[in-house]
Amino acid sequence: MNFYVLTLFPELITQSCRYSIVGRAIMEERLTLEAICYRDFADENRKRRVDDYTYGGGAGMVIQPGPIVRSFRSIETRLSPRRRVIYVTPQGRLFDEQLAIELSQEDDVVFLCGHYEGVDERALDILNAECVSIGDYVLSGGELPALVMIDAIARRIPGVLHNDESADIESLSDGTLEYPQYTRPVEFEGRRVPEILLSGHHANIGKWRRGQSLMRTKERRPDLFEKLELTKEDRMLLIAAEDEKTQQQTV
Amino acid sequence: MNFYVLTLFPELITQSCRYSIVGRAIMEERLTLEAICYRDFADENRKRRVDDYTYGGGAGMVIQPGPIVRSFRSIETRLSPRRRVIYVTPQGRLFDEQLAIELSQEDDVVFLCGHYEGVDERALDILNAECVSIGDYVLSGGELPALVMIDAIARRIPGVLHNDESADIESLSDGTLEYPQYTRPVEFEGRRVPEILLSGHHANIGKWRRGQSLMRTKERRPDLFEKLELTKEDRMLLIAAEDEKTQQQTV
Repeated sequence: MNFYVLTLFPELITQSCRYSIVGRAIMEERLTLEAICYRDFADENRKRRVDDYTYGGGAGMVIQPGPIVRSFRSIETRLSPRRRVIYVTPQGRLFDEQLAIELSQEDDVVFLCGHYEGVDERALDILNAECVSIGDYVLSGGELPALVMIDAIARRIPGVLHNDESADIESLSDGTLEYPQYTRPVEFEGRRVPEILLSGHHANIGKWRRGQSLMRTKERRPDLFEKLELTKEDRMLLIAAEDEKTQQQTV
Repeated sequence: MNFYVLTLFPELITQSCRYSIVGRAIMEERLTLEAICYRDFADENRKRRVDDYTYGGGAGMVIQPGPIVRSFRSIETRLSPRRRVIYVTPQGRLFDEQLAIELSQEDDVVFLCGHYEGVDERALDILNAECVSIGDYVLSGGELPALVMIDAIARRIPGVLHNDESADIESLSDGTLEYPQYTRPVEFEGRRVPEILLSGHHANIGKWRRGQSLMRTKERRPDLFEKLELTKEDRMLLIAAEDEKTQQQTV
């Protein structure tokens, strides 16, 4: 799979992808990543400037259509028909795990990063770009969100995660938040790992974790909790988790 | 304002903050950013290793409580009482523009980045960390989300955005998506800037933009659209925008 990022800050993209899972996947040749700079495709006589004032008035600069369309065309012949072109913007549908899975099945994903006030709408029309947002907040540019999406998508490409890493993607995929994690030492600053986790009783551990997941989802993400269809056992495990918490707080 | 990021990848943090608005704000001394590496606070005899297996079984490694708590304590004496400690995790409340505004009013914000399967829950309890998520997707670590939050928060610190940049934060803050933007040239590959934007008639431009914002919000984010309280004029502008779009599509 190949990622292309069209941007004003190609170094930010290439430097940030050297780390962790994405960096390893590039080394293992499971994916490629290329950053293309809009400035290399500036209008003539503009000396690598690619932004200009917005028509109709308003603060902020807008990236011109020419540099965006030409930087895309510089890679277009290398793109597979199985490709997606994504404009990163708060004015888009929300990115989620489901979209990460969907995009991980394409051959090529091209990200257009905005900066300043945004990009000329005609470039998005011409390139038939999908508008995608990583969340309801305003950022200075599309580069960090593109990196976020590349990370989430890369994790879904077969072979990118090694066997011992695959479990964490179970979180969220059933609509609940993950249970708490503990590792050595058993006691740290007077706090012990919950006894159940040391018991070796896998069925009970599974139930305890399910209860914790449900309690967390209820507390922290009532929007997700509302959508869950709880079984009778789920409801009992949730009550048990809540009782345990109350007891700890009153000790 | 000071940001501290506790992480396994300090270079990723410091390199990525050299660019754009955050990079400039650091140069202008409106904020500081420091990355602290968990490995510098590893348990004795572990040779800078900070992760271990999860109690109770399951794939993936968990970061031990000691390195997290000690790396926090290494900066604690420098922190103001007006501080927030945030653990970056999909198991948290959702980050949004409102939280960005709230955090921009603190003196210090400390981010704890997880990696692998997560971090030992006791470290979060001891440090009284708030769990915050940037969206419903799974990433390899908390570093990119911390950078995303730092960008969004920094933009809300007075003086970080210069005068000509402040307008874009109006997007989202009234619950609608922003209208489309256009810049030079007036005609690009046969597509013209909408005539209204060239008219110089500011009241009409404002109405057209409002209609476009409402139409976009309805199309792309029905969840946000549902929450809007539309005036009679809003409804008329929305219908006008939808009519205009239909006409363009049938030409």
